[in-house]
Order: sequence, then C-alpha cells, then structure tokens
Amino acid sequence: MRDEWFIRGKVPMTKSEVRAVSISKLELKPDSVLYDIGAGTGSLSVEAALGMPAGQVFAIEHKDDAVELIRQNREKFRADNVTVVHGHAPEALLGLPPATHCFLGGTGGKMEEILAVLFKQNHAMRIVANIIALESLSGILELVKNMDIPAEVVSVQVAKAERAGNCHLMKGQNPVYVISMGGETT
Amino acid sequence: MRDEWFIRGKVPMTKSEVRAVSISKLELKPDSVLYDIGAGTGSLSVEAALGMPAGQVFAIEHKDDAVELIRQNREKFRADNVTVVHGHAPEALLGLPPATHCFLGGTGGKMEEILAVLFKQNHAMRIVANIIALESLSGILELVKNMDIPAEVVSVQVAKAERAGNCHLMKGQNPVYVISMGGETT
Amino acid sequence: MRDEWFIRGKVPMTKSEVRAVSISKLELKPDSVLYDIGAGTGSLSVEAALGMPAGQVFAIEHKDDAVELIRQNREKFRADNVTVVHGHAPEALLGLPPATHCFLGGTGGKMEEILAVLFKQNHAMRIVANIIALESLSGILELVKNMDIPAEVVSVQVAKAERAGNCHLMKGQNPVYVISMGGETT
Amino acid sequence: MRDEWFIRGKVPMTKSEVRAVSISKLELKPDSVLYDIGAGTGSLSVEAALGMPAGQVFAIEHKDDAVELIRQNREKFRADNVTVVHGHAPEALLGLPPATHCFLGGTGGKMEEILAVLFKQNHAMRIVANIIALESLSGILELVKNMDIPAEVVSVQVAKAERAGNCHLMKGQNPVYVISMGGETT
Repeated sequence: MRDEWFIRGKVPMTKSEVRAVSISKLELKPDSVLYDIGAGTGSLSVEAALGMPAGQVFAIEHKDDAVELIRQNREKFRADNVTVVHGHAPEALLGLPPATHCFLGGTGGKMEEILAVLFKQNHAMRIVANIIALESLSGILELVKNMDIPAEVVSVQVAKAERAGNCHLMKGQNPVYVISMGGETT
Repeated sequence: MRDEWFIRGKVPMTKSEVRAVSISKLELKPDSVLYDIGAGTGSLSVEAALGMPAGQVFAIEHKDDAVELIRQNREKFRADNVTVVHGHAPEALLGLPPATHCFLGGTGGKMEEILAVLFKQNHAMRIVANIIALESLSGILELVKNMDIPAEVVSVQVAKAERAGNCHLMKGQNPVYVISMGGETT
Repeated sequence: MRDEWFIRGKVPMTKSEVRAVSISKLELKPDSVLYDIGAGTGSLSVEAALGMPAGQVFAIEHKDDAVELIRQNREKFRADNVTVVHGHAPEALLGLPPATHCFLGGTGGKMEEILAVLFKQNHAMRIVANIIALESLSGILELVKNMDIPAEVVSVQVAKAERAGNCHLMKGQNPVYVISMGGETT
Repeated sequence: MRDEWFIRGKVPMTKSEVRAVSISKLELKPDSVLYDIGAGTGSLSVEAALGMPAGQVFAIEHKDDAVELIRQNREKFRADNVTVVHGHAPEALLGLPPATHCFLGGTGGKMEEILAVLFKQNHAMRIVANIIALESLSGILELVKNMDIPAEVVSVQVAKAERAGNCHLMKGQNPVYVISMGGETT
C-alpha cells in the first residue's frame, strides 16, 4: 500500500517498500494473530489486517497521537480486525489472545523483556523486527545468539525517484535492517 | 515467501525481498487477473496467486526449462489459479482473458510492443516492471514519458547476512529497479 | 576531506565519500591538468588540487554565488593551483590550457557538446562524471556507446550514522552514479 | 587505483571504491606514518604510500601468501616507502616507529587490544576501520563508546555495471562499514 494513502501526522512511518518486505517475512496465514509492537501510524497493522480477513491484529502503541492515527487509519481502510492497544509492551500484552506472529517496529529499549514474553507465550512464534539503530542491531543479534535461535538478517536500502522537470532524481531513504526469526520451518 | 521454498534449477529468480516489493506495488485485489510476463521459475506468479484465491494468474514464459519449473512450483504450492502460457509476449497474450494487472520480469527486448498491447487491452492496467539493465531503464522511462503516464521508480538494494562462524557478514545482492505505473488512482 | 571543512552556502556539494571515489577514478598524476565542469562549491577542485601541487585545476562554473564560494574555498585551503573560470561549458573551455583529465559534476544539459569538445582536445582524456538523474545516465550511456568508448559505471550509495542519544541511526544519502572513461590504459 | 592493477591471488582485497573512501577518511599528510593492520594484498598500503612519498607505511600481515603478495605489489608499483611486517597485531607493532595514522582492515578478533595499544602510542592517532561483520560493528561501537571517542560511521554500498551484450547490468558488492575516529580536529 502506498504511503500517501495513510493518514500520517508527524509520527514516523515504515516506508511502503520496507513494510512490504516486513509483512512478507512475517509469513502470515489467513487466520494468524499478529501483535504489532510500536505500531506508529498503524500502517503495518492495517496492511497486514487487510491481507488476512480471518485474522486478528493487535496494534500496541503508547503515544497518544499515534494511537489516534491508528484509529483513523483503521477506520479509513475498514480494517475492523485491528484492535488498538494503548500502552507499553511487554505489560500491554497481558490479557491479549496469544499471538502466532509479532512485528517489532519499536521496543522502547525493552527488546529483551519483550522477546522473553513473546517466546514464553509461543515457542514457535514468528517474529520480524525493523531496526534502524546500530546499537539495537547488536542488541538483538546478541539476544538471538544467547537464545540459540537462528535469525535472518537483511538490510534494505531503497531510493525513490523524484521528478525534477523532465528528470528523475534518485533520493536515498534510510537503510533498515529487517530481522526475522522463529515460526514454522516449512 | 522464502526463495528456498521454490523449486529452482538454473533459471534466475526474483529474490524474496524484491518479489515482496513488486507484489505490493501491483496492488492486487482478491479477484484480479494478472499477467506475469517472463515468469521464470513462477515464484512471483505463485506468491501472487496464493494471495488472491479468487483471482487468476497467467504465467507467460518461452523457455522450456522455466515452463517446467513453473508447473512444478504451481503444483508444489497448489496454486491452481496459475495458468502456464508457453510462448513469447506479446503474441502469447492473444486469446487470454483481459488482465487488470501485469508484472514484467523479462520482456526479451520487446518492452514497447508489450506495453502498447497491454494498455490497448486496458487503459487502467496496473503494470509493475523489474529492471536490471541500465539500458532497459532508459528504455522504459522514455516510453513512459512518450505515453505521458506517470511512473514511480524505486531502486531496491538488499544485503543479506551470511553466517561465518559466530559472525554475520553482509552480502550485497544486485540492485533492482522497480517501476510502477497505471492502475486506479485511489 | 570532510564536508564541513568547506564553506558552503546553499550550493549543492558532492558528498565526501562520492568525492573521494570520483577523485580516485580520475587517476590524477602529480602534474595533471584538470577541468572541473560544474564545480559548485569547488570542493572537488580544491581536494584534487591539494593532491597534485604541480598540477593545475580549472573550476568552471556559471552561477555567481557558486563562483564566489569556489574563490573562498580556494583561499581557505590555499589551493593556489585552482583557477576559477566563470562561464558555461563548453564555451568557457576555449582558451584554457588543454586538459589531461575532466570531472563532470554538472553539464547543464550539454553533455554531448562537452564530451565532443573534450575528446577533440585530447583523445586520451580521462573523464569522470557524477550522475544523479536517470535521464542523464541514459544520455551518457548512449553517447559513450555511439563513440565506442568503454565506460565503467558504478553506483555509490552511502549511509551515515547520526547520533540520537546513545544510538547511531543510519541515514541514507542519495545514490550517485560515477561514470569513468578514457585515459591511459595501464 | 583499479583493482585489476594489483597482483591478487586468492587473498580478499578491499575494493577500489571502498579503498578510496577509506584513504580519504585517513586524512593522511605528506609525511604521515601509517600502520595498515591486516594488509591483505597490500592494495591500501601501496595506494596510500604512493600518495605520500615523504611518508611511511607499515603493512602488518600474518598470512604467508598475503605477505608475499604485498611484497609483489610494493615492487610492481615501486612503493619503496612500504615496509612489510610479518606478524600479528598488536605484538607486531612493537619496535615500529610510532604511527600518526592507522587503517584496520582485519584485526583477527583483537580489536580491543589493538585500539588500546594504538591510542596509548598516540592519543591523537587517526584510525579508520573497515568492518564487514555485524558483530565487529557492535564491538567497535561499544569500545569507542567506552573510550568516549566520537566516531563517524558510514556504510558504503557499491554496485558495478557488468557488460552483457549491449547492456549494463548492475552487480551489487558487499556493503562495508567505514568507521573513522581520532586525529586532529581541524
């Protein structure tokens, strides 16, 4: 889905191409239950939800303005299977139906606690994270190594053409690390 | 879907991440009709088909070994809504049900004729192309400019970690240009 | 040389890393004569000049504010072997000592005329261009093909960490095509 | 300098573009003393040495076949100011003239000891490292943070065109992190 389709405000949003790669790596099924932690504008929640009408998405977000945006985007796209959860992970996960999949867009420095809660809930949970800080990258690699879980690490660097008169000028976007782990091994 | 899930042989395959971005840019609907021109292993056909059970995919490919691979992948993933068309575009498109969407993975130097046939069939067709040769990039930009159709141009450069002992070494993949045009303007 | 060392204003400047690659591709000798066409802030002229004290650099630029910046940077770095030429290429090249090397940072749409003048002046001139518009990329590839000159084409995509609290966030810069051709074959 | 100019064998070599960026980040002066630790084929040593005839380069390398290649390349390019040091850093640094600059191409897992020795020798040493393993990236960032030394982190991703008939196909190279620290603040 195109970035400009979403209602945005000033909340940072995963860009279209990285969102597509991340959703693909999640390997969702028609009836999956997905946590979207640090949901931001809700763009990933909404796009994932539209792709699995029989599934459920829980968009966890603690910032007030972002929560409001998720609600607006959910309404705009009639993504009724998105539930907005206002709070911090991992606490906010208590009481939610157990997930089969989880996307980590932002963890507020609590990656370790969150991963522990997730894998405790479901051994075979499929987890995909978007990482932009080099320190978080080291953190997650260290955690994954200690937990002895093989992880796939991919960096995605997108450049997008902007029109300038008759010309297309390529504009670089920020590189994002997409880390994938767990899930069923097919 | 992971690259290693597909039966491959020596036919070149769009890599997982670029395939995800390309399918996302196609903006398929549950009942779309998609031509996949230069279908190769059929990975894009299959992944797109599984995402739209009520839709139809025509995988057009002229190489014998590739056609065989598409058949095998279609069977492996039970993608019954993929039809293999053995032949060259644009001739091979004659007689097919009109498409709503088209993916151009390889055009054998006939980009211009193919685009002409596609847009004649359906003004509002959504077309996404993967380009790796700089000369093809110029070609399609020129065509699109002459047809006065706005195109989005994105380059995607992926690097993937390989395990070497305790370390993850990033290995660069080839950059791919993903060009998107047409379709409904929402 | 670091970007922040140069006096800049609002004139666009080749970034440090791409400048280093471009100067390296020029394969300058201690006594080379370099034209820097579309010299902008003069950063490439100055850096190249400091690396060849016995050589000469002609910084050709038509914009008034850029010309003033080149003069300031030349003075700041005491790059006395840089001569500022206020005007448009290729006309402004008339009367200059013949060059052994040329860097094309901006050609104002006159790539073809400029290349013709340069190669007429010196068959074996070493020419390096920085290209950011896809249309210019096609243009130069076409020209080079018609002139039957082998060209090396490289794209350079740099991301640079920005500090945000305790973290390094990678920020993508715009990809630049660096095209190199001619020169002695060693 | 072009990669193909160097005598190579099977020893991995920093590619031309990353070598140019790395040498640029070193900010060498005409009379600098440079350690090249993990010198490999000696390509960086030789290119740096040719750029500072009044300077000195010590190429530290422990592999026999690489040491032989460095000697051959030094001879080929008449880089008499390169001294080959056969051994492991940091031990092999003992007895060498103190350096003003250091390039870290490979540290055999001893980054911490090496950095300690270098900064003890010269507080204001300018150090540039090439990192390809994500784990080494975390390691050096952690070290640098603990030593309270600001470091610049840049990733460089190069793609190079290969000729295929009439076409240029872009081939991705591996992304390299270039870390720079210390040195005089101008």
